Amino acid sequence: MNVGIVGLGLIGGSFAKGYRKNAPDCSIYADNRTRAVTDKAISEGVVTAPLDENTIALCDIIIISLYTDAAVRWLSDHADLIAGSTVVVDACGIKRRICREGNAIAKASRNGFRFIGGHPMAGTEKSGYDNSLDDLYEGASMILVPEDQSDSSLIDRAKELLAPLKFGMFVVTDPDHHDRMIAYTSQMMHVMANSIVKNDKCEFVPGFTGGSFQDMTRVAFLNPSMWTELFMNNKDYLLADIENEIEELGKYKAAIEAGDEETLTALLADGSHRREGLDIGR
Amino acid sequence: MNVGIVGLGLIGGSFAKGYRKNAPDCSIYADNRTRAVTDKAISEGVVTAPLDENTIALCDIIIISLYTDAAVRWLSDHADLIAGSTVVVDACGIKRRICREGNAIAKASRNGFRFIGGHPMAGTEKSGYDNSLDDLYEGASMILVPEDQSDSSLIDRAKELLAPLKFGMFVVTDPDHHDRMIAYTSQMMHVMANSIVKNDKCEFVPGFTGGSFQDMTRVAFLNPSMWTELFMNNKDYLLADIENEIEELGKYKAAIEAGDEETLTALLADGSHRREGLDIGR
Repeated sequence: MNVGIVGLGLIGGSFAKGYRKNAPDCSIYADNRTRAVTDKAISEGVVTAPLDENTIALCDIIIISLYTDAAVRWLSDHADLIAGSTVVVDACGIKRRICREGNAIAKASRNGFRFIGGHPMAGTEKSGYDNSLDDLYEGASMILVPEDQSDSSLIDRAKELLAPLKFGMFVVTDPDHHDRMIAYTSQMMHVMANSIVKNDKCEFVPGFTGGSFQDMTRVAFLNPSMWTELFMNNKDYLLADIENEIEELGKYKAAIEAGDEETLTALLADGSHRREGLDIGR
Repeated sequence: MNVGIVGLGLIGGSFAKGYRKNAPDCSIYADNRTRAVTDKAISEGVVTAPLDENTIALCDIIIISLYTDAAVRWLSDHADLIAGSTVVVDACGIKRRICREGNAIAKASRNGFRFIGGHPMAGTEKSGYDNSLDDLYEGASMILVPEDQSDSSLIDRAKELLAPLKFGMFVVTDPDHHDRMIAYTSQMMHVMANSIVKNDKCEFVPGFTGGSFQDMTRVAFLNPSMWTELFMNNKDYLLADIENEIEELGKYKAAIEAGDEETLTALLADGSHRREGLDIGR
């Protein structure tokens, strides 16, 4: 199998390392803005050679792991070099724009390659190739966003090409539902973690923390410009979730303020019950 | 060493198992509302015998792991049976009331035992003896709250008696500072985790979650009546933190609503920087 990777950051680097580990015979071609990173990945034996005008046409799959703007630009610039048998998957965190543009570019391309939106539900609070992991995707969910959800030949081909990464599950959905869910499960978690540390007591917490503070602030450490782009591209859904959260916090506040133990216990029991019913092992 | 444990729940059970594991020769006496749990702990070889009018006087240390009301009642009911050389430590999550009452009961007791407030910064989202762990406290912080912070003989004696649990650090503070910090590091984390699942999308999250949603909702599953008591006993500080959090969330909301990328990036960078500077490995 020939794999193309565009962007060798945490996500792209982990794709490259995952293929190298589990499909050792595949050829991996990579393109990264800073050439030194590609060279390092080649010298480590992870990447075979640069992804360029000579190798793009060889790829069975091309995974684009760039910010949305850059992903659209790369795809647009290289579309006519991509073979008709190639499946192109992106890894952007928001899917409405990239899918609209990706599908349009694919259809207008010389050889008519196939595009499918992708979002691997895995990451760490670190970034960059040096922090990428060969098992980042093992057991994680991979969201696939085809233009047509009944296009099983495209979906099956994408799953087959992604099989070496050992994802725990594939979820197929549309761009709108993806963005609506991700606003909640990922974006709002980052807003909340990042907001929690905005408290005068924060610098004095060492010695006063058990597991919960660590868990709830882990993703406070993040890439500000990347998340700003993601949040702004998903404004409508994210705002609704932040508003809902503020409203919900207000309910606990009101019950505590009023000394209303019954209401507070009911609020806590409801939340506890909802969490207990969720099957979201990693 | 002779150890007394009052309350064989997650916290008390983990104290008993930790002593049994690391100080195998010690005698452990336990008192639990439901006698069957004590019997089980005895049959497992964790507990030596019941903590009662015959064994209370033998204890070098007595650890009370009950809700505040019940802890005060137990201490008051048994104060005159406790030897003058005994150190009594509680494990309540809030310290102002228990320390005030514990210190007063100790002073008025027949033999003049010593009381010191305690709060082990460890736990899991589960409860009960069956979920208790023999290594729950290893590496964790143990907060000690003596009436007089310059009373080094009491503090040193407590540390010595608690040494078999292998805490990673001891923090000595006063009840007010403890309650102020815990409102933030523990109580507010539970309010937030519990509130996050109050979203219409919650039941649809499987397949759309990476690590952050799991981490941030782990402690949403909790004991509603225990946390209600803790929150109500720390109303002033907890309310201030919830209000602060609502205000901080509003800043992200305003920046996103206004499409103000610069402000949003600055908010995220500030949070990221604060988290990066925190040395709170578990």
